[in-house]
Amino acid sequence: MGQVTEKNRRIVLASRPVGAPTPDNFRLDEVAIPVPAAGEVLLRTIYLSLDPYMRGRMSDAPSYAPPVAIDAVMVGGTVCQVAESRNADFEAGEWVLSYSGWQLYAISDGSQLTRLGKNPARPSCALGIMGMPGFTAYMGLLDIGQPKAGDTLVVAAATGPVGATVGQLGKLKGCRVIGVAGGVEKCAYAQETLGFDACLNHKDGDFTDQLRQACAEGIDIYYENVGGKVFDAVLPLLNVGARIPVCGLVSRYNATKLPDGPDRLSLLMGTILVKRIKVQGFIIFDDYGHRYDEFAQEMAKLLHAGKIHYREQLVDGLESAPEAFIGLLQGENFGKLVIKVSDAQE
Amino acid sequence: MGQVTEKNRRIVLASRPVGAPTPDNFRLDEVAIPVPAAGEVLLRTIYLSLDPYMRGRMSDAPSYAPPVAIDAVMVGGTVCQVAESRNADFEAGEWVLSYSGWQLYAISDGSQLTRLGKNPARPSCALGIMGMPGFTAYMGLLDIGQPKAGDTLVVAAATGPVGATVGQLGKLKGCRVIGVAGGVEKCAYAQETLGFDACLNHKDGDFTDQLRQACAEGIDIYYENVGGKVFDAVLPLLNVGARIPVCGLVSRYNATKLPDGPDRLSLLMGTILVKRIKVQGFIIFDDYGHRYDEFAQEMAKLLHAGKIHYREQLVDGLESAPEAFIGLLQGENFGKLVIKVSDAQE
Repeated sequence: MGQVTEKNRRIVLASRPVGAPTPDNFRLDEVAIPVPAAGEVLLRTIYLSLDPYMRGRMSDAPSYAPPVAIDAVMVGGTVCQVAESRNADFEAGEWVLSYSGWQLYAISDGSQLTRLGKNPARPSCALGIMGMPGFTAYMGLLDIGQPKAGDTLVVAAATGPVGATVGQLGKLKGCRVIGVAGGVEKCAYAQETLGFDACLNHKDGDFTDQLRQACAEGIDIYYENVGGKVFDAVLPLLNVGARIPVCGLVSRYNATKLPDGPDRLSLLMGTILVKRIKVQGFIIFDDYGHRYDEFAQEMAKLLHAGKIHYREQLVDGLESAPEAFIGLLQGENFGKLVIKVSDAQE
Repeated sequence: MGQVTEKNRRIVLASRPVGAPTPDNFRLDEVAIPVPAAGEVLLRTIYLSLDPYMRGRMSDAPSYAPPVAIDAVMVGGTVCQVAESRNADFEAGEWVLSYSGWQLYAISDGSQLTRLGKNPARPSCALGIMGMPGFTAYMGLLDIGQPKAGDTLVVAAATGPVGATVGQLGKLKGCRVIGVAGGVEKCAYAQETLGFDACLNHKDGDFTDQLRQACAEGIDIYYENVGGKVFDAVLPLLNVGARIPVCGLVSRYNATKLPDGPDRLSLLMGTILVKRIKVQGFIIFDDYGHRYDEFAQEMAKLLHAGKIHYREQLVDGLESAPEAFIGLLQGENFGKLVIKVSDAQE
C-alpha cells in the first residue's frame, strides 16, 4: 500500500445497491497504468475524498448528476501529484485537486485541475474544509441561513466536515449553536473543541425532549444535511421566519421506500405557511460556483487565525474505500473521511 | 335586510368546529347599537369580506394569530360608512376600510381605519384586488416567485381573488400560466376572461395526467394556496430552481387529522434538495406591510388600464355569512366572496 505499483488499481461499481451498499457492490480491478498522450498528464492519487453524495451516483434514480455506469470507476474528488507531464502547464511532482475517482492513476488534459502548488501544507484540506464540504457549509449557512447574533442554530452531523464548519461559522456570527451527532465522543468534541453551546446524541431515547429543552427559544436556522428523525424533532420547534438550507439528506440515501406513518408533508407545509419559513435546496458548485474565490479567501483567513477547527479521518489504502464509504452512510466516521491512496513523492 | 335597524346584528362564534364548520358553529345575536364616546366613530358595515383564513381563527390550535373567543364576534375585514362621528378626523357618510368583523355596527377610535373617501367607485375592491388578497398575490408572486418570461407558472384556486391575480400578473410577466380550478365554468373563465394559457379541473379523474401534459417543460413556479392533491400532482413536475410561495392551504383547513399514506415529506425534502427549490411561507401584512403603497400604486394602474380583471361574488345579508363561508372552504364561491351587509347611504 502506498508504494509505486506497476498496475493502476481502481474500484469500480460492480452492481447497484438495494438499500445500504454492501462490499460486493464494489470491485477492485487492476489494469495497465494509462499512458498520457501529447497535452495530457498522468495523475497519481494521494488522497481520495469519500462523501455521502456518492451514494446517489451508485443509483440510477433521476438526480442532479448522472449515475456511475456499471463497471465504471467510482467518482470522487482527489488530491493528486503529477506523475508524468506531457502538458506544458504542469510539471511532474506538483499537486493538483482533481475529480479522478477511486483509482491510483488517471489521465487528465489539465482542463479540470486546480493547482495546489509544489509543496502544499495540508493538501488533503482541499477535499474538506477548503473544498466542497467547507464551501457547502459556508454558502448554505451565510447565504441561505442568514445567521444573526442571538439566533438559535441547529446543525446535524455536527462533527462532519459540513456540520462542524457550519457550527463554528455560526458561533463566529454570534449564534447559539446546538449540534446533533451520533455518539458521546462526537458530542464531547463538538462542545469542547468546536465550541458549540451543546451537542445532543440522536441515539439517546429522549433525544426529542433533549432538543426541545436545548432550544427553549425555538430554532431560527436548521442546517439540513441528514433528514429523518432529526428533522422530525426540529419541525415543531421552528420559529417564525426560520431558515432551512437543505444540502443533503444522508439518513434517506439508503432508503428503498418512503417510510410509512402519518403524512408529515402536510405538517411541513402547514409549518412553512404559519411560521413563514424558507426552505431552500442547493447544489454547491451549480448554485454558488461564482463565489468560490470569496469563500476560499475568507476560510483561509479563519483557518490561519485558528478560528476554525478542522478534523480529518484518514483511512489508508484504496482497497479500504468501500468499507469506509459504507460506514460513512451509517455515521461511523468522525471528521472528514479521506482515503490515503498512496504516499507523496519527495 | 340593508335598511337601518334599531339593533346591532352580529354573528358570533357559538362553538369551535370539528372538521368542516356547520351552521350551528355560528349564532346570530341582536344587541343594542353601541354609542360612540368622545373621540370615537360609529361604523355601519356595508361590505364584509369572507376569506379562508377565518377557518383558522375559529380553531384554538396555535397559529400566527389568536383565535376568536367563544361568543365573540367573528373577525373579518369590512368596508364601512361612518354613521356617527365624535372624532374630528372623520365625517359622517365617509367610507373606510376596517376590520370590524361579522356585524352591522362597530365602534372605532379611528386608529385602525383606512380612508376610502366620500364616494369611492368600487369600495368593495378594498377587500379584494386592492386589499389583502390582491396584495398577497402581488408580493408572493413577484417577490418570492420571481417570475421570468417563459417560466411555467401553475396556480391553484385560479378564479379566486388571489389565484386570478397571480395568474394575470404572471401573464404580464411573460409566463405560461396553467390554472387549476374546481369546475368547468371556472376553468372557462380563467382561460377566456383572465387569459390563462390553460386551466385544469381538479375534479377530473385524470387531473394528474392533464397537469403533466399541460406542463411538458416542467413547473418553474407553483403558487401554493390549496395544498392536498394539487400539490401532489405538482411535486414530481417541479423544475430545478423552482419557487413555491406558500400563502394558504385551504384544502387542509377542515382536516381533523393528518392524512394516512406513504410519507410524502421525505419525497418533498428530496425534491427540494435535488431540484434546489425554494419554498417560502408568508403572512402578507406581517412580512410585506412596508411595501403596501408600492403594491397599491401598481395595481391601481393595472386595473385602470384594463390589464387585470377582478371578479366578485356578492352575497346579500349578514345572516348569509355562515353558509357562504362554509361553502368558501369547499370551493363553492366563484370570485372574491363579499357579504353585502347593508345598503350605502347617499
